[in-house]
Amino acid sequence: MRACQQFNNIEEKILHTQTLLKRNKKNTQRYMQNSDYFKRSAVSTVPNSDPIRVGIIGLSSHKGWAFKAHYPAISQLPSQFQITALYNEKIETSLETIKKLKLSEATAFPNLESFASSTNIDMFVVCNCVPDHYKTIIPLMEHSKKNPNLKYIFVEWAIGSSIHQVEVIYKAVAERGLQSIVALQGRKSPYILRAKELISQGYIGEINSIEIAANGAWYGYNRHMKSPMFIYEMENGVNLVTTTFAHTIDILQYITGSYFSRINSMLFNNIPEQELLDEYGKKTGKKVPKTVPDHLLFQGALMNGNVPVSCSFKGGKPTKKFTKNLVIDIHGTKGDIKLEGDAGFAEISNLVLYYNGFREEGIPAAPGQASYDTTKEFTEVYHLRNYNAILGNIYRLYQSVADFHFNTQNLTNVPSQFIMQGFEFKGYPTLMDALILHRLIENVYRSNIIGSTVNVSNITQHV
Amino acid sequence: MRACQQFNNIEEKILHTQTLLKRNKKNTQRYMQNSDYFKRSAVSTVPNSDPIRVGIIGLSSHKGWAFKAHYPAISQLPSQFQITALYNEKIETSLETIKKLKLSEATAFPNLESFASSTNIDMFVVCNCVPDHYKTIIPLMEHSKKNPNLKYIFVEWAIGSSIHQVEVIYKAVAERGLQSIVALQGRKSPYILRAKELISQGYIGEINSIEIAANGAWYGYNRHMKSPMFIYEMENGVNLVTTTFAHTIDILQYITGSYFSRINSMLFNNIPEQELLDEYGKKTGKKVPKTVPDHLLFQGALMNGNVPVSCSFKGGKPTKKFTKNLVIDIHGTKGDIKLEGDAGFAEISNLVLYYNGFREEGIPAAPGQASYDTTKEFTEVYHLRNYNAILGNIYRLYQSVADFHFNTQNLTNVPSQFIMQGFEFKGYPTLMDALILHRLIENVYRSNIIGSTVNVSNITQHV
Repeated sequence: MRACQQFNNIEEKILHTQTLLKRNKKNTQRYMQNSDYFKRSAVSTVPNSDPIRVGIIGLSSHKGWAFKAHYPAISQLPSQFQITALYNEKIETSLETIKKLKLSEATAFPNLESFASSTNIDMFVVCNCVPDHYKTIIPLMEHSKKNPNLKYIFVEWAIGSSIHQVEVIYKAVAERGLQSIVALQGRKSPYILRAKELISQGYIGEINSIEIAANGAWYGYNRHMKSPMFIYEMENGVNLVTTTFAHTIDILQYITGSYFSRINSMLFNNIPEQELLDEYGKKTGKKVPKTVPDHLLFQGALMNGNVPVSCSFKGGKPTKKFTKNLVIDIHGTKGDIKLEGDAGFAEISNLVLYYNGFREEGIPAAPGQASYDTTKEFTEVYHLRNYNAILGNIYRLYQSVADFHFNTQNLTNVPSQFIMQGFEFKGYPTLMDALILHRLIENVYRSNIIGSTVNVSNITQHV
Repeated sequence: MRACQQFNNIEEKILHTQTLLKRNKKNTQRYMQNSDYFKRSAVSTVPNSDPIRVGIIGLSSHKGWAFKAHYPAISQLPSQFQITALYNEKIETSLETIKKLKLSEATAFPNLESFASSTNIDMFVVCNCVPDHYKTIIPLMEHSKKNPNLKYIFVEWAIGSSIHQVEVIYKAVAERGLQSIVALQGRKSPYILRAKELISQGYIGEINSIEIAANGAWYGYNRHMKSPMFIYEMENGVNLVTTTFAHTIDILQYITGSYFSRINSMLFNNIPEQELLDEYGKKTGKKVPKTVPDHLLFQGALMNGNVPVSCSFKGGKPTKKFTKNLVIDIHGTKGDIKLEGDAGFAEISNLVLYYNGFREEGIPAAPGQASYDTTKEFTEVYHLRNYNAILGNIYRLYQSVADFHFNTQNLTNVPSQFIMQGFEFKGYPTLMDALILHRLIENVYRSNIIGSTVNVSNITQHV
């Protein structure tokens, strides 16, 4: 009974928060639309206020995702972000990280409650293992009530190990009144934004059809000995569907500006045992079990335009000889876009964008530019040779947070919070974007289990 | 009642025929397997008996499929085939064809019964419009009982306009005791046979996954004024599913040697109106309705190895800029095969085959060849620059019939009839192969309508 009443209480609080947020929605949209997304970010200038004080969970001195992506991103924005706290049960680990990474302003917390309630933190960054997110974030929201300065929580994908965990995390963060940011960083990839721009400006006309093939090596026949075990066990929620598929399909929805109306999926675990590779990549002959899928077939229709989308996500050999490990083909009535990458993970790969087509009739030329000849064919190959996508996309996500926090573009009527990014160019994905994506993931599992095509046109409702 | 008894009677006769045929099965398999398929066909030598006398339905003097493919194929095998009869209601049309094509041995029949019962015919070739097949073949089987010389019936794809028509045609031909040949000529394409050979000899190891994308221009936004109307009307059974999809998936099953176990499909008619193009390919502004689909999403698992297959078949622009109109990607544990073509119709396109991989361990070297180094990587690009696939694949199908009829390779124990080709290298596809393929087509429609993944593992049973 008591749990139930508490739950009602949370629901009511969320409703209240959402009502407030919805009042902000018009301002949000204005903020997101009132300037070109590609206008140079102003975060490199020194803001007129103190940096956002960051407390990180999961940063090591020498390895792991936080060390590879979040730490260098924050380091490159020293006037905007400052690491002030680290949480790790083993205080020696945090002290070593502080020493090695020269985090002179940071305090090491071995106790989650002390970390959560420290008033020296404006923003939590949750980067520990996904299976540990839930048991970290829920007490974090409770104990952080003692910290009135706290404004943000940045949660690494895949948020939680199940849709239930993600829902509870979403509610807890909403109840706490924090602005969430989630690491669906593919949305910040310059290639993805360029593709989105070309489509939204009519360069390929109406979308006719889309094909995606992605090959994520680590779900294949072999596994490196040092690869963490939890990504091969279904119960942890970190697998081909929640990572390779989710990031890529989020990117696709973002590019096209549309969710799906109906989907069908088939999951395969054709490789129930993987062979271990030693540190030099040599086969050891030792086999280990794998319960996560090695292949996902996914097909469906986009809500906007009933566009057919055909997808194949797989584990297997790291390279295929006659095609790249990531290929996204978008065919339109006036042009085509192809995105290619060497790794099957669009959100962390440096890509190449190919465009060919005609500018749609009736679209006025951009300000200051000569009007276009609509019969003229355009071709574009877009590639940033030295772009480090692992760091770059996360860095741009932090940039977006700083742009918002410091209002670097001096916009009026900036909303106090974003409910969600949706398909806007500006802003950053939030836990609501994450929740909608997790509902799609849930329907991918469901479609496979019940052997049915599934209507997903309502998954953005009733949040 | 009477119809019902007749039906039972037919069933019994078929059962009897099949029992006889099954006795022949071992001989059939021996015939099909006892020499390399690629051994030079012996049909170019003059056989020691009279040519097969061919009666064609649907041959014109200057246009149409029979004129483009069947007539030149037969002409190139003059010692093996001879056109002795033409059927057309309008005798002037047949007389003109005889005159223009110099068919000196041919008689023009304006009456189907006379044509059917002429003892000067060994083989019917049914090449009229698919919607007319049923009403042609059924009386043909009845009236041809007066012709004791008749041995073969060669029926153009798609056999009939519905699964029901195909079933009745199958039964009527079986009851009549004829050997059937069907124009699933993609199986005779040198590229398809090479791909099948590479796979069956272990050159790509076990198949990991398959992707197909095919683009059939004529189901797209425009339609040429002279294009026949019946291929845009659903009730005629000649559409993206029965042609582009059926030919391509038949080829895929043939290459891999496996039927499907489960499938899901989604059909789209996103282009319900097409714009007419004039004879110069210019838009006329006039719109005409289209009820056939312009897009098919198809995914499923092969029975052998539970291999995931992802397919996208579409109408649309005739060329896509960054990919060919036909792409078949087959990924294996030891290598990859890619087949590409400029048109989305694998059975009538000249293709290019790309192979890269390692020879599977444990396979003995071919006779007379040095043993292979299993660690060595092989690459092959196979392309016959001047290959005319429209004619060539049909020609090779006639060659196979001649090889069988004249026993050109002097084999012993040649069976009197083939029930079906199945996935053998030798022989030719029959109405039973066609019936199984039509059952898959039927399940493609069904999966789309009921919105479900469908078990198709039993469609080869209960023939």
